[in-house]
Order: sequence, then structure tokens, then C-alpha cells
Amino acid sequence: MNPEEFSPLDPVIHSQIRLAVLSILLSVEKAEFNYLKEAIGTTDGNLSVHLSKLEQAGYISVKKSFKGKKPLTTCSLIEKGRTAFSRYLKALEDYIHLGSSI
Amino acid sequence: MNPEEFSPLDPVIHSQIRLAVLSILLSVEKAEFNYLKEAIGTTDGNLSVHLSKLEQAGYISVKKSFKGKKPLTTCSLIEKGRTAFSRYLKALEDYIHLGSSI
Repeated sequence: MNPEEFSPLDPVIHSQIRLAVLSILLSVEKAEFNYLKEAIGTTDGNLSVHLSKLEQAGYISVKKSFKGKKPLTTCSLIEKGRTAFSRYLKALEDYIHLGSSI
Repeated sequence: MNPEEFSPLDPVIHSQIRLAVLSILLSVEKAEFNYLKEAIGTTDGNLSVHLSKLEQAGYISVKKSFKGKKPLTTCSLIEKGRTAFSRYLKALEDYIHLGSSI
């Protein structure tokens, strides 16, 4: 077995909350902040931190607007994030399969 | 979607090096320290820290002996680790599938 076969797992994605966010965004055009918060079962502050990290990496787009007088934050997965997520899943699969194939 | 469906990912396993160690140990009866180090491409110190964490969690057994005059450290996956790893993989799969099924 070659060490290089264990590719690094993207640290931006290899976090429980960010993994959940990306998994959801992969299958919808966009998702509201509150929807993500409830679906994942986390807090405003925690979700904000993780969304910022994903946004800074260029993996998601975060748009702030208003719904009536209430602020509305909407997130969507963008191309770089889609590619990175797909690479992450492939690497993760390799971990599992490499282990079983030696 | 119910928040509880995103189960916690076992933090003892959700680390790149420990994931690689467990993946390898899943398919062999036992593995020597140096083999793991080379297969994973890490250092003595780093691997030691991660093996200790897995051992403390009761997931692997670490046996120290001698091969001639050289110390020999051998690791193997034990029942609790096998169960935890299988639960981790199931939870991880849920993350991916839950995201795609909403």
C-alpha cells in the first residue's frame, strides 16, 4: 500500500456541521439559514461560524436579504464547493476501501 | 427532516489519521507500528498520540514486545472498536444520504 493513496481529507469539509450543511445544499438549489439550523439541530452562533468558513473557502454563497421586515439569509452550494465535496467523498471512500483491500 | 437524523460522528474516529488506522485494522488480524506509520505516511510521534487515543477509548489493543533486541509494537482492532467503527460508517452514510433525500 502506498502512503499517497490516503489522500488528505479537506479540513473545511471534515467537520460534522459543515458536512451536514454541504450534504443538504448538494440536493437543493438554496436553503434558508433557519431551515439549516433546524435540520442540523445547531445554534445560530455555531451555524454562522461554520457558514462563514464555507463561504470564505468559496464553497457556498451566502445572500442576506429581507422577507418583509425580517432579515433572511439564504445559502447555496457553488461550483468550487461542489467539486471539493465530490473530491472529499471520493477520498473518504478510498479510506474505507483502501483499509479493506490490503 | 428531523434533526435527530444527523447522528453525532464519533470524535474518536472522525480524525484523518485515526480513520486510516481503523480502516487498515478492520481488515487484518494485527498490524505493526512501523507498517501503520508507512502506510498512512505519518510520523512516530503523531501515530503514537493517535494510537493512544484509540487505545484509551477501548477501540484497539496495543501490545509491546521485542523482535530480537528491537521493540515491536503491534495493534489490533477489538470488539468495541469494531462496533464503534461500524456505527460511525453508518452515521456518515446517513449524512450523505439524508442530504440527498430531502
